[in-house]
Amino acid sequence: MTVFDDELQKLKEKLLRMGSLVEDAIKNSVTSLVERDNALAQRVIDNDRLVNTLDVEIDEESIRLIALRQPMASDLRFITMAMKITTDMERMGDLAVNIAERAMELNTEPVLKPYIDIPKMREIAQGMIRDALNAFVKKDKKLAVDVIMRDDKVDDLKHDVLQELAFFMTQDPTTVSRAMRVSFVAQYLERFADHATNIAEMVIYLVEGKIIRHTLPPA
Amino acid sequence: MTVFDDELQKLKEKLLRMGSLVEDAIKNSVTSLVERDNALAQRVIDNDRLVNTLDVEIDEESIRLIALRQPMASDLRFITMAMKITTDMERMGDLAVNIAERAMELNTEPVLKPYIDIPKMREIAQGMIRDALNAFVKKDKKLAVDVIMRDDKVDDLKHDVLQELAFFMTQDPTTVSRAMRVSFVAQYLERFADHATNIAEMVIYLVEGKIIRHTLPPA
Repeated sequence: MTVFDDELQKLKEKLLRMGSLVEDAIKNSVTSLVERDNALAQRVIDNDRLVNTLDVEIDEESIRLIALRQPMASDLRFITMAMKITTDMERMGDLAVNIAERAMELNTEPVLKPYIDIPKMREIAQGMIRDALNAFVKKDKKLAVDVIMRDDKVDDLKHDVLQELAFFMTQDPTTVSRAMRVSFVAQYLERFADHATNIAEMVIYLVEGKIIRHTLPPA
Repeated sequence: MTVFDDELQKLKEKLLRMGSLVEDAIKNSVTSLVERDNALAQRVIDNDRLVNTLDVEIDEESIRLIALRQPMASDLRFITMAMKITTDMERMGDLAVNIAERAMELNTEPVLKPYIDIPKMREIAQGMIRDALNAFVKKDKKLAVDVIMRDDKVDDLKHDVLQELAFFMTQDPTTVSRAMRVSFVAQYLERFADHATNIAEMVIYLVEGKIIRHTLPPA
């Protein structure tokens, strides 16, 4: 194993660590909403700086590796994609923070209704980021395609949540401000899944050496 | 002027062209909403493929330049940041498409109210992407800081729009589905401005050689 192999391995480990932090963040943010746990919501907000630190570190390390090792072809592709992926993961961390913030606001008011579809969205979205990153470090195209396929399910659930919330607001105007906040949470989760999809698309680019982004029919 | 200088210049021109397409897209998407112009909305949707094509071209060209020319220090930083910026711009194009889609849905129903703050948000957001990209290609830190400052104004306007929409929905349940769609538009515009802010933060990184992302206090 060369020094460069070792450095590349460390870069992969950092990416996976960042992914694992983002996974924890989305899980805890939704739990803080469902269980009305302000302390947990605050922890999600505080821990986001760990995600941000890794974002910066991975960028710096990637630029250093390119400048110093002048990697060719597939390694170069891997490192530049890693830099793009951190952008997605950093935003995913922000979305978890947004959910935690809405949770803290919602926790000051009576429960609108038990959350059913939102935890489902969270579960799928969390699996998507885990598998998208694993697909990236293992260059596993099949797993990447599988991640992309799951995005539709998240979109469908979001659609159901928004329909139900519109019904609540129409029936009872006192629910409007709470229902709007819950609708934001559903949208954050949808965007979280979109970022995982973007990462999965980059995996296919990495493996096939060609860009499939924008070539799939719109969902 | 070396061949590499020339290639770098072409890369900058492509970035500016992509920015100009994204500017047109956001402008036309909001016009299609305000003027209830379905044909214009459809044009925004159709033209997004031009943005997507440039996204792929800039990525490919950037990787080619790094592999072939092995640029050092500031050029390498510029090229890798260009690849990250295209990710932002591609999403901005998608947001314009989302606005155009909501416009077409809203155009099938009576006008909820005249749009005042939404065109204001659009105007600021459009100026932000124009200036963020100019700051990037000219490495103009002052302009980049100015872009970042404007993001608060967009957030404030979004807040006002959502408050007003909540009031509508509370007063008259028949407005709920329309008001929700308009609230999505306000959120798309806020995210559009966020992407411009991300680009401006990368400019400062490029100029200072250090990452200011995540070091500013949250808005």
